[in-house]
Amino acid sequence: MRVRDLQTPSLIVDAGLLDRNIQTMSRALPGPKLRPHVKAHKCTSLAGLQSKAGHRAFTCATVREVEGMAAAGLGEDLLLANEVLDTARLAKLDARVTVAVDSEETIKAAADGGVAEVLIDINVGVPRCGCAPEDAGRLADLARSRGLAVRGVMGYEGHIVGLEDRTQRNALIGDSMEALIKAHEEVGGDVVSAGGTGTYDINTWATEIQAGSYALMDTAYAKLDLPFEKAITVLGTVISKSSDYMVANCGLKCFGMDHGNPEIEGGHQVWFLSDEHITFSSSADLDIGDLIRVYPAHIDPTVAYHQQIHVVREEEVLDVWEVDLRGW
Amino acid sequence: MRVRDLQTPSLIVDAGLLDRNIQTMSRALPGPKLRPHVKAHKCTSLAGLQSKAGHRAFTCATVREVEGMAAAGLGEDLLLANEVLDTARLAKLDARVTVAVDSEETIKAAADGGVAEVLIDINVGVPRCGCAPEDAGRLADLARSRGLAVRGVMGYEGHIVGLEDRTQRNALIGDSMEALIKAHEEVGGDVVSAGGTGTYDINTWATEIQAGSYALMDTAYAKLDLPFEKAITVLGTVISKSSDYMVANCGLKCFGMDHGNPEIEGGHQVWFLSDEHITFSSSADLDIGDLIRVYPAHIDPTVAYHQQIHVVREEEVLDVWEVDLRGW
Repeated sequence: MRVRDLQTPSLIVDAGLLDRNIQTMSRALPGPKLRPHVKAHKCTSLAGLQSKAGHRAFTCATVREVEGMAAAGLGEDLLLANEVLDTARLAKLDARVTVAVDSEETIKAAADGGVAEVLIDINVGVPRCGCAPEDAGRLADLARSRGLAVRGVMGYEGHIVGLEDRTQRNALIGDSMEALIKAHEEVGGDVVSAGGTGTYDINTWATEIQAGSYALMDTAYAKLDLPFEKAITVLGTVISKSSDYMVANCGLKCFGMDHGNPEIEGGHQVWFLSDEHITFSSSADLDIGDLIRVYPAHIDPTVAYHQQIHVVREEEVLDVWEVDLRGW
Repeated sequence: MRVRDLQTPSLIVDAGLLDRNIQTMSRALPGPKLRPHVKAHKCTSLAGLQSKAGHRAFTCATVREVEGMAAAGLGEDLLLANEVLDTARLAKLDARVTVAVDSEETIKAAADGGVAEVLIDINVGVPRCGCAPEDAGRLADLARSRGLAVRGVMGYEGHIVGLEDRTQRNALIGDSMEALIKAHEEVGGDVVSAGGTGTYDINTWATEIQAGSYALMDTAYAKLDLPFEKAITVLGTVISKSSDYMVANCGLKCFGMDHGNPEIEGGHQVWFLSDEHITFSSSADLDIGDLIRVYPAHIDPTVAYHQQIHVVREEEVLDVWEVDLRGW
């Protein structure tokens, strides 16, 4: 099948760019140095490529992601890097599952639900999950007293990973990771899990990096000085045309919009999106029926809208992957 | 089942409020005066309630929505109020299907694909699909010459429906609809299809109103002086708590974000959303494990993230509906 023959809108990934992104990351962070985050692609076929590249341990954000990875035979070492109270589904899985905990309640839920291993989740600067660093030792003791194995700590420097200026990222990461290391001293265990695509090469404190976006990328991460290329686009068809603007059939239900408008390949000017439309102007002479490729601003909530990813090389469709980790 | 027992995040609709919204609209626009737009809920079970309330003709935005409505036995009179080039799937359906056209290309696609009936889509002020009003007569002639039955015109005053001030909506709608009526004079046919939830009671030019959001509502439409109530929320669980803020497990993959942050019932202050989290502060004393209900800012791209809608009355879960019109 040719790209031309795909129904639109469709999510398409460039096989060559995806492969290059995966290889670039694997050279920088081989094997267990990287724990790829599946929330960015929600696709076990893509996780399979990351596994083939040497990464056997994965990061998940939802119980559904853990379940799907286990079912796909990728459950060698799954970290649910998120707090969860409904732990019953996790204990049933044929997989090694470690869960983040940051409170007495989440420790109790892990123990009651039959989870065997946990990481203590530390707040390293993002007002989200994670306990205060000074509370980490107490929680680790509590977890062990409840029969849980404490593998170490995690902390996500989410306030730093997206900063476009590398010197800014460098300036801030030290304080953030020193808090994590201090907590780790109190907690013990082998694992210091942290980092993301924006800090994969400057976070030298973590024993493993939880990067996810590097494989597919988006326009937000493309503004950083990273060696990863935008590999995924939404394919749309021009369906209407006036003297000033054109309209294609990919809209708000195709793109996570929290980072703003997506960008159209070829420098067309995006005006706005509606539920099923993108209105744009262009100096190029596009006709009704022509295809456009649109780069998402934020990959994670974009992929979550789509059922499939089409793998293409040039104009050929090589494969169709299910986005099989959607939902919760 | 009780709301308390639902897995979170979950989309939940209040059965009483939904019913009231549907009844209020049906009294204002009985039977064929309303052509409910399914893009706002993507759910044939909900469309079934609208049908029971007397509305047998529906509006769709995608081929998938038309297919799903036909499969659900709701295909008495389906308008695909959108331009489409890939028409082959439409002609196969056991349903009456009318398609919007605004160009020679879309007329050719309709005729070639075996579509029988069309509306001429007129630009009434939104830079999106729709031909110039003065081109409508020519396109209607062309469509008829290609063997298509032209049922009339449609035009969506999308630049007016969301204006919070009723006097502003009233001031603008006349010019917009006069362009549509002028085009209709050139086109002929019985149908003048237009309008939305924000203009359902002031658009007196249209023969039928394409409102969709009125059934479930969202915080954007709730700012208008409309008699419809916010009936849908995302149910989330508080999973983490610090001294200043709390975190619940519903994030960017639960909410269309183009209209900004959602709002939490009970007046909690939303700080920001991440992929799977909402961080907020509150004067209320919430504990880890407590449930929150979060109102979407924009209903259409919110529902598109979810697989099911749970129908609740007070704390009881009455039914589970599939969001079966997702995708394209």
